[in-house]
Formats: sequence, structure tokens, C-alpha cells
Amino acid sequence: MEHKKSLILDAAEQDFCLYDWLDVESLSRYERFADHNRDTFEGLTGLARELAEEYFEPHSRKADLNEPKLVDGKVELIPEVAVALDAFAEAGFMGATMDAEHRGFQVPSVVYRAAFMWFQAANVGTVSYPLLTTAAANLIREHASAELAAKFLPPMLEGRWFGTMNLSEPDVGSSLGDLTTSATEAPDGTYRVRGDKMWISAGDHELSENIVHLVLARTGGPGVKGLSLFIVPKWLGEPGALTERNDVALVGINHKMGYRGTVNTALAYGSGHFPGGDGAGAVGYLIGEAGRGLHYMFLMMNEARIGVGASAVALGMTGFLHASEYARGRVQGRELGSKDPANPPVPIIRHPDVRRMLMLAKAYAQGGTALILYAGKLLDESEAENDSAERASLKLLLEVLTPIAKSWSSQWGVAANDLAIQVLGGSGYVRDFPLEQFYRDNRLNPIHEGTHGIQALDLLGRKVLLEGGAGFAQLLQRMRATCERAAAAEPELTPLVSKRIDRLEEVTRQLWAAGDAQTALANAAHYLEAAGDIVVGWLFLDQLTALASTTQAFAAQKRETVRFFITHVLPRADADLDLLASQDRLLVDIDDALI
Amino acid sequence: MEHKKSLILDAAEQDFCLYDWLDVESLSRYERFADHNRDTFEGLTGLARELAEEYFEPHSRKADLNEPKLVDGKVELIPEVAVALDAFAEAGFMGATMDAEHRGFQVPSVVYRAAFMWFQAANVGTVSYPLLTTAAANLIREHASAELAAKFLPPMLEGRWFGTMNLSEPDVGSSLGDLTTSATEAPDGTYRVRGDKMWISAGDHELSENIVHLVLARTGGPGVKGLSLFIVPKWLGEPGALTERNDVALVGINHKMGYRGTVNTALAYGSGHFPGGDGAGAVGYLIGEAGRGLHYMFLMMNEARIGVGASAVALGMTGFLHASEYARGRVQGRELGSKDPANPPVPIIRHPDVRRMLMLAKAYAQGGTALILYAGKLLDESEAENDSAERASLKLLLEVLTPIAKSWSSQWGVAANDLAIQVLGGSGYVRDFPLEQFYRDNRLNPIHEGTHGIQALDLLGRKVLLEGGAGFAQLLQRMRATCERAAAAEPELTPLVSKRIDRLEEVTRQLWAAGDAQTALANAAHYLEAAGDIVVGWLFLDQLTALASTTQAFAAQKRETVRFFITHVLPRADADLDLLASQDRLLVDIDDALI
Repeated sequence: MEHKKSLILDAAEQDFCLYDWLDVESLSRYERFADHNRDTFEGLTGLARELAEEYFEPHSRKADLNEPKLVDGKVELIPEVAVALDAFAEAGFMGATMDAEHRGFQVPSVVYRAAFMWFQAANVGTVSYPLLTTAAANLIREHASAELAAKFLPPMLEGRWFGTMNLSEPDVGSSLGDLTTSATEAPDGTYRVRGDKMWISAGDHELSENIVHLVLARTGGPGVKGLSLFIVPKWLGEPGALTERNDVALVGINHKMGYRGTVNTALAYGSGHFPGGDGAGAVGYLIGEAGRGLHYMFLMMNEARIGVGASAVALGMTGFLHASEYARGRVQGRELGSKDPANPPVPIIRHPDVRRMLMLAKAYAQGGTALILYAGKLLDESEAENDSAERASLKLLLEVLTPIAKSWSSQWGVAANDLAIQVLGGSGYVRDFPLEQFYRDNRLNPIHEGTHGIQALDLLGRKVLLEGGAGFAQLLQRMRATCERAAAAEPELTPLVSKRIDRLEEVTRQLWAAGDAQTALANAAHYLEAAGDIVVGWLFLDQLTALASTTQAFAAQKRETVRFFITHVLPRADADLDLLASQDRLLVDIDDALI
Repeated sequence: MEHKKSLILDAAEQDFCLYDWLDVESLSRYERFADHNRDTFEGLTGLARELAEEYFEPHSRKADLNEPKLVDGKVELIPEVAVALDAFAEAGFMGATMDAEHRGFQVPSVVYRAAFMWFQAANVGTVSYPLLTTAAANLIREHASAELAAKFLPPMLEGRWFGTMNLSEPDVGSSLGDLTTSATEAPDGTYRVRGDKMWISAGDHELSENIVHLVLARTGGPGVKGLSLFIVPKWLGEPGALTERNDVALVGINHKMGYRGTVNTALAYGSGHFPGGDGAGAVGYLIGEAGRGLHYMFLMMNEARIGVGASAVALGMTGFLHASEYARGRVQGRELGSKDPANPPVPIIRHPDVRRMLMLAKAYAQGGTALILYAGKLLDESEAENDSAERASLKLLLEVLTPIAKSWSSQWGVAANDLAIQVLGGSGYVRDFPLEQFYRDNRLNPIHEGTHGIQALDLLGRKVLLEGGAGFAQLLQRMRATCERAAAAEPELTPLVSKRIDRLEEVTRQLWAAGDAQTALANAAHYLEAAGDIVVGWLFLDQLTALASTTQAFAAQKRETVRFFITHVLPRADADLDLLASQDRLLVDIDDALI
């Protein structure tokens, strides 16, 4: 399909990934997706683009300049947010991936992800509200009782009730086992929740009739095993008959560097501010079994982590597209060898260093897109597959890729925005252009849903070891299969990837050979970064094997991007791998006082 | 000297650099600095610290939240800025490095630089006004006629008149040869300046009685040789009797991501807005000779570039100090091997990845401090030295180091702020802590006074070739002399530095062997970055040879920082050098359409 040009996302790149490379049409072999085909997929991404252009992008800067305000105890947002979200919900985006029985369209999540990236690139702040709502709805659908689902899902999927995730507290973030918010059972089987929650995105607002908080709270002893998950609605009652305010109070609004359209709050549960229920705490409804709260949350979090990566990639891509456009129009200086001031100046895209920055930003944006959509398709396959062993195996691979999809995309998505600012120079630093906002917005992504450091421990300390390393072995096998397929056509690039795959395997083995976790994990961030570069190098190489059906122009562009990544970027992984192989313990052994 | 703790800068580190490592007291061997000694130096840095703490740091956030506003055609700033600058001027900081004949104190610029970094770390926005004023005053002192100096210098050095630099125009930034602002001589020997200037920091405000604009304008033909430099005051007349408004009009204010305390303006010269002079343009006074404008500006710019590096390092250091403080107080999670939730959580500085981020931020801050102060001392020596050959030789070395001091400090100063945000997690992303502001403020530094890409071309395309490569040869010689001195005491670290010095020399030769500038410069940014890492590795190694007179605690801390930098960071330069050695032309040859 021919697309008219957009600075939000690169539609041709997205099409290539979905249809030429990942062949997502083949997902219709699964019963769940049997009604879908390329037309329905393109309908969804096309509609997302239209809505993103019409309702989301136009108020992105206005939302940034007009932070959510607390007025008479209520959160005040600019009116464009509600208008955009109404359009989003009306178009059916809230429940698009849901089962038909929940009035969803059973869209594969890889396609939904691609569609959603249009909104993320256009206005990451506004689209957070439905992002959180659909994540909460998915969790309720999967783990809550049929009764709870019947009550909460319909208004959420219609966009009348919004959702949130309540994990962190003022003193507890990464270490969820230390959460102190408590929940006690009431005689009627509901619970009373008491405690303070922090960093709650979309925690209070007037955008929806009700807010459905998913809250982690302690029902048992210490540690993560004492945690359960609850639905705690802002208002008690039924849709259309919300009469009683539950005891969930807005304590304050956090003022962020970016992502300003999303109100971020501190909430107090059961503080007695609202005398809802019986005054003994906020009324909550247990999801699933007690003590399994973190487990349920983590199932959702894996998806959320890929969603964070997607947001980072989307912002990185839109930054690249803006910088690329600017570099073709902005005239400045002359090329080497024609410095005569009588010659006319050239567009800055003629200067090698500007080309370096653009190519690097593009490689990050395209590499991240590949990662996110590859992971998205794996998710679909791992859920729709009939064979349970195959399903488990796909899930295991996805587990390994998740921290990489989250972190590599976040780290280099911000870097792409940084490069885009630099391409514009002074103009990149001012609000006349959106680049500085993309950079500020994107800086949240390496922090939330598990920091970079947490992802590194997850990858090296847990994921590569899971089931005796079966997921990691599968990754290696897939990477090597690509190298075999690509070797003949890409005799220069393939060995540059394959030798690093070998090295990654070798270093992983060395690190765990002694079984000393402290030493193995001492430089885990380097492992995460090297593995990310190598995985992206592999996916890029894999994309080269899928160029036959694309246009010549697209293929030529992709070849250069891949060659650039593999020859100019990937070699940096060697220093990481060398450091890991040395098993240097400086960071473990150093005395705190010397830091 | 024992210092009480500060989160603005690390006073012990600064003392070590100035006295134990660089031995700046030895500068008193030069006649110019004969009246100085450690007491006068410590008096200056101590006073800077006091003023920074009392007058600058307290309003840094307020200035960020209250951008300069245009009210009735005037720039409105928060009142704290004027109070701080009065205190700054009253303490004599405006002309501290000036000759006694200009009522200065002849302070060595390395010491002034160190003192000034206290202000930059405390409040980079407010201190820009005197920074620009002293830079303009230095230029006037050096190149303007005695008559102009007599008129403009006294009120500038008293802090009654402020200064600016006017280079960029709306369509011309990096390519100064294309400037279009014109100046024509009037019968009385003054000039009439007409044209638009852009990105002018401190371009208009009510902080001073007058504003002394230094303006690059065209008096001759095309290119840089047609450019001359002018003093164009906002008000015409004498100090205390400023009667006529010169035709310099404020056209607009730029809204920046950071550095918000410094008003940044678009100015129109000779637009007829103010009927000053004879209405034929703004009245300007030629500095030095016509056609030498860019030359004068560049002499000043070298100093300004080191000043930008200093600002970046100061912000990086204060970010590190804040993150380090936070990491010692914030309790979260448990150490590997004691995950039992019954154990109390530990300060996050116990986690290896937090230690990694702190060590990396510290290495950037200390490495940058070393670079900036080393360059500062070279400047003093190159100006005070009696032997003209030695003076020229020192200047040549300083020329080579200047783009590195500017760019390495800027690039990794921002990175230090980025790491500091990450140490704090969500708290790093909100305005309750200053980290996010440091990051936004610092992001300007890789852009202004010559972007990263411009510095790369300057280093590889000009500086390493100057005088047959004499400056570069001197750098290599100094680096190798350090390696020889350090080899016995540091048998592990020295070879890691020296082998990269050899490689840098080899790659530099290879790049220029064919004399093909296009190929040689294709990957110049990688050269700048590798050279920067190697130079900082050298300076760190050199610092290890100067630890004898420090406390044991300081020496142990420094050793770990240096070991960390050389073993964990420096190896990344190898990938840069490999790419350079390959003389890859992808960035030169690629078709614009494929980017």
C-alpha cells in the first residue's frame, strides 16, 4: 500500500515489518484470528493513524505546556484529552484485542501494537489513559472471577470507566516484596484496603465516570508471597448508578520532566477522607487467589514492558522523521572540497556527521520496531498455539526477549531523540519544534515498569537460566538459523553477527560456570546492552532475507540501515562482552565510602 | 584544607586538581601571577562557593519555573537574578582575571575557572550573564582600541554594563561565512549595523544600565574574510549619561528546554524600531581591523568552548553528588544472597548497578574536571610564558585539547546527569529533585559554541594537522611521558592507556596518509570521542602519580575511580578506532534518499 508521508511514524517500515518480514497474515491459521486478514489489519492501523493525526498529535504540545492541575480537589486537564479519548473508544480501540464474547475484535496483539504506536508517537501522554485501561481490563479478564469481569469489563471496554495499576508506595518501588498497603477481609467477602500508593499514572481525573484501580496489597506475611491483587473502584455501585465515593483519596500530583499529559498521582487508600463503605478502609474486591497478586501483576507487566519499549521506539521514530525532514530542508554550509562562499550552501543532510546522526537514530528506531513487533507476534503465537509444548516454548523465548525489548528500546529510543535534537542544533533545544518534548517524554521509559538495572538482573539472573536455559537456547538457535539463511547473500555482514552470537553464548556460559551469582551479575547492565545489540543485529539480518517482495527503493534503504548498524554500531558490544568475560568484581567489592 | 560537605561541587577534588596534581601555585613564577599564592586562590574559590550557596543555588529552580517573560516590550526576570549578580560583581568576580591596570586581580584563569564552576553548578542560568560579560570584556581588552576599551571596560568590569556575543542569524549558525548582517562606515568613522541576529543569550534585559553587544557583521565580500566585529551598545552615550536608545530591537524570546534563567533572544539591528543615531542603522564601533572579525571572535571562542565544557562538567558533578547522597539514604531491596524479606532493606548504594551508575557519573565528572583545569592551566602558561617559542608551543597543544575539552565534557556531562536521574528512578524524573533540571540545562552544552560535529571536524580536520602536527605530537609526547612515569607503580593500568595512545597515533596517520579529506573525516565524531576517552584516561593516570601528598581516603577513592574508568570505560574507544581505521565511507557515499 502506498502511504502519504507522515512525521508520526514510517508507515512503509511498519508494513514491511508486519507483512513482508513477520508475515502476520499467517496468524489467521489460528482459530482465534481466523476472521482476520491483511485488509482488517490495514483497516486498524490506518484508522489509528487517522485518529492519531486528527485527535492526538494536535494537542501534544498543549498538554505538555498545561500540566494537570489540582483545582478544588479535582484534576483539571485540557479538554482535548477527553475529546481524543472519546474518539479512541468510539472507534473500538479499547477492547480491540478482546474476545468476541467481550465485544472485542480478537485483533492479534502484534497488529494492535503497531496501531497503538501511532497514538504513542503522536501523543504519549494522552494515550496512557487507554493503555492503562486495556492493561487493567486484560488482567481482570484473565484472572478475576466471572462475576467481577461481568461488572467491570463492559464499562472499561466502552471507555466509560478507566483503569490504573497501583504497585509503588512512597518508600517501595523496585522492591515490591516490601509493600505495606494492607487488605483485610470483611464479613461480606470484600476487602478493606489501607495504605499509600505513589507514582500512580491516571490515578485521578474526570475523564471517565469511574476509575478502576488494580491495587497490590498485603493479605499475608512478609515478602511477595503475602501480596494479593484487588480491584478498588473510585466509586462504588453499578455503571450508571455510582452513588458512593470509595475511600480512595488524591493526595497530590507529581510534576514530571515529560509525559506531562498523563496525570501522575499519590493516592491514599482508607485514609478516612471519604467515608465510603463502612469506614474501615477502601472497599476492594480480590482478584483470583490471595497471595498470587504479584504473579498476576507480572503476567500483565511483561506485556506492559513491551508496551514501554513500543512507546520508546515510537517516540524515537517520530523524532527521527522530524529530524530527517528538517535536515533535507535546512540549508547550511558547504560540502568538503567546495568551500567557496560563492557556491550555494547545501541542505545539512549533505554533511557526514548529520548523516551519521540520522542513520544512527533511524537504526535505533527501526531496530526497536523490529524488536517490539517480533515480540508482539511471539505473544500472539504463544497464546493462540494449540500445541501446549510449543506454546510453552514460545512463551519461554518471549520471556528472554522481554527485558531486551523493554530496555534496548528505551535506552536507544531516548538516544534517537537526543540525536534528533542535535541534528536541529539550537532549534532542537527550543519549543518551536517538538524534538525537545520527545526527549523529555521518552526519558521516563528507562525508569518505569522496571528500571534498566532491574531488567538486566531479570535477563542475566533469571531469564537466560529459566528451564535450564531453554529459552536462551531457542534464541541462539533462531539467531543461528537466520545466519545460515543469510550467509550466501550477505557474506560480509553475516559473520559480523554470527561471531557475536557465539561470543554471547560463550560469555553466558562462563558467567554461570562457577555458579557465583554475585560475580556473574556484577556487570549485568553490560550483558543486557550487548545482548540487545546482538539481538537487534540478528533481527536486522533477518529482515534482509525478507526484501524480495518490497520495492527496490525500500530494499536499498533497509540494506544501508542494516549495514550501518552492523558495521558502525554492533562492534561496541565487544567491549561489553570483554568486560563480562573478565568477571571484574570492582562494582561488587568496592567500599561504599570510595564511590 | 578540610571542607564541609557540599552538593554543588566536590571541593576536595577541586583542591586535589589545583594543588596536588596541577600545582597551580607554581604559576606565581610568572610575573603576571607573582602576587598570588595558595591563600589568594583558596580565598577566591572559597568566596565563590559562599556566594554560590547563598545567592545562586537557592533560586535555580525558581528561575527554571519562571522563564523570562516579555512584558510591555521589556524582559522580566525573577528579582533574585539581579541580587545574585550584584553580589557577584561587588565581590570583584567580573574582572578578577583582568590586569591590575583595569582594576583586575590578575587571577590565573585556571583558578578563576575553578571558582566559576561553583556558580555554574549552582545556577548555570544566572551566571551566564557575567560569563558573557567577562568574555566580551576580555575581547575588547585584547582587540579593541584603547579609546573603546577606556569607554566600555570600566562599566563592564563594575557590573553596570553587561555584554553579549552576536554570531548566529536566523538562517546561519554553524556556517558563519554566510552571515548577512551588514555594517557600513559613517562619515564620523563609526558604523551602521543592519540585520537580524538569533540565539542571542542575555540579548535584552533590565539587569544592567546598558548592554554591550559584540556583533559580527559583513563589511567586505563573501565568506569569513568579509566579516568584522563591532561593539553595538543598547544605549548610546557615556556611563551615567545614557540618553539615546540605539537601534537594537528585541524581536522575540526563545523558549528553551533548559538553561531557562538565561534569556535567549532574537534581535534586529537597524530595523528602524528605535530612531537612534541617524536612523541608517544601529551605531557600531569597529573592533580592531576590518575583515578580522571572525579571527577575534575565535580567539574568544576557544576560551568560551572550555567554558562550555566547564559548565557541563560542573552540572555533571553536582548531579553525581546529589545522586550519591540519595543512594546512601534511600533504602530499597536487599543484597544478593540475603533476599529474605525478614532482613532489613539496604541503602541502594549497595546494589552493583547503582554503584555502576554512580562510578560512571563520577568518572565523567572527575575526568571532565581534569580536562578543564588542565586546559585552564595551559592557557595561563601559554599567555604568561616569556619564551615566545614555548608560548607558541603551549598554545598549539591547547588548540588540540580545546575541542576535546568542549565536547568530551559536554557529551559525558549530560550522560552523568542522565545516570543521576536513573539512580533516583521516578524521583529523578520529577521536579522535587533538581536532577531533571541539571539534565535539561546541560543538554544545551553539546550544541552551543560549536556543535559536537563541528568540534570533530575542528580536531581531526584542523587541529591535529596544525603546524605539521606539532600540537598533536606534543600531546602524544606528554601522554607517553605520563605512561613512563606511571608504569612502575601502575603495571596493570598503564599498558591499557599506552596501547591506546599508540593506536590513536597510528590511526591518525592512516587517516591522513592518502590526503583524502572526505574519507579521513567521514567518521570524525568517532575520532573526537575516542581521542577524548584516551586523553581522559591519560589525565587520570597522571593523577595517580600525584597522590603522594593527599589523604589516604582521597587516594583510595581516586584509585578506584581511575581503575574503573580505564577498565570499564576506556575499552569502548577500540570500536571507534577500528571503525576509523577501516576508513568506511558509508556516511559519505550513501544517497540522501536512502537516509
